[in-house]
Amino acid sequence: MNRKPLPRATELAHELIRQRVESGDTVADLTVGNGHDTLFLSKLVGEDGEVVGFDIQQAAIDATAHRLGNAGNVKLHLACHSRFSEFVSTPVKAVMANLGYLPSADKAIITRGESSVTAIGAAAELLTPGGLITIVVYTGHEGGKEEAETVEEFTSTLDQSKFSVIRYGFTNQANHPPYLIAVEKKLEKR
Amino acid sequence: MNRKPLPRATELAHELIRQRVESGDTVADLTVGNGHDTLFLSKLVGEDGEVVGFDIQQAAIDATAHRLGNAGNVKLHLACHSRFSEFVSTPVKAVMANLGYLPSADKAIITRGESSVTAIGAAAELLTPGGLITIVVYTGHEGGKEEAETVEEFTSTLDQSKFSVIRYGFTNQANHPPYLIAVEKKLEKR
Repeated sequence: MNRKPLPRATELAHELIRQRVESGDTVADLTVGNGHDTLFLSKLVGEDGEVVGFDIQQAAIDATAHRLGNAGNVKLHLACHSRFSEFVSTPVKAVMANLGYLPSADKAIITRGESSVTAIGAAAELLTPGGLITIVVYTGHEGGKEEAETVEEFTSTLDQSKFSVIRYGFTNQANHPPYLIAVEKKLEKR
Repeated sequence: MNRKPLPRATELAHELIRQRVESGDTVADLTVGNGHDTLFLSKLVGEDGEVVGFDIQQAAIDATAHRLGNAGNVKLHLACHSRFSEFVSTPVKAVMANLGYLPSADKAIITRGESSVTAIGAAAELLTPGGLITIVVYTGHEGGKEEAETVEEFTSTLDQSKFSVIRYGFTNQANHPPYLIAVEKKLEKR
């Protein structure tokens, strides 16, 4: 029997991505940060797949490149994820994002609601049917709540005939744990 | 690859229960209704287990008894689930509830916030470590929102050192889909 406790937002994001992504897929990491999700995606899509990664901080790009080692299936861009559509034009199976700041770096450099929404909107357009965007939302830092509201407002108005949007999070914890928003493109009716 | 879409609240409730309940367990259904969850639980716990079921409507008890056929491991009580502790005194591995009204019956007969909270609180007390309460919350009917608020307020203040409480639901659907609240009793630290 599975004795795993209720998953954290990051764990559920990984589980949902793992269920959908397979070898050869194209996927994206909107906020590579320290590269944990980028590496996770790189392994899932394998040599024949591709991961497109974004971050506005050179330190994040460097840390991610270091973590990836010689993985040849990742393209890292030192660019705001709001420029998603400049760098990605093919359908994507999955897109991951962590909204907030880069751990261990300058906490004044944070993701912002408008640029996040631009990125998520562009990613949603390119999502393959059955594909998924996972957004782990941190609200404990300054500006975090405003960004969360902007992202929730945007995602909760996505056309329900085309997308399913879920929100998952703990409700009885005092320390602002991150929560998950996931956007799934529905399969076409047959 | 798993191509299942993002689960509905009821599907996630079943999945989480299935991961935790095993043959021989004692479990409860706070709102047997038409008996779907009762039968699901009866099969999971098997001949050596026990399901305790509650409903305030004779029609629900009858429908559930009919659905269960000759399953000998279920005790049905025509009683409000707020009387949980009168009927259950042994530890329970899982407890399921659907808050709202009985489909196909009188829509004026609904579960109420206070009695639901009494039942959930009593069930939480008797939950084994690692055990889970799933509460599927319907808000589309009259009184639904008030009950949902009462239940959310109660569950979100459960002691985070003893319980994990999550909320899962769709955010972009116009038709008030039900959402899930799940309460897990933490395993004791070793």
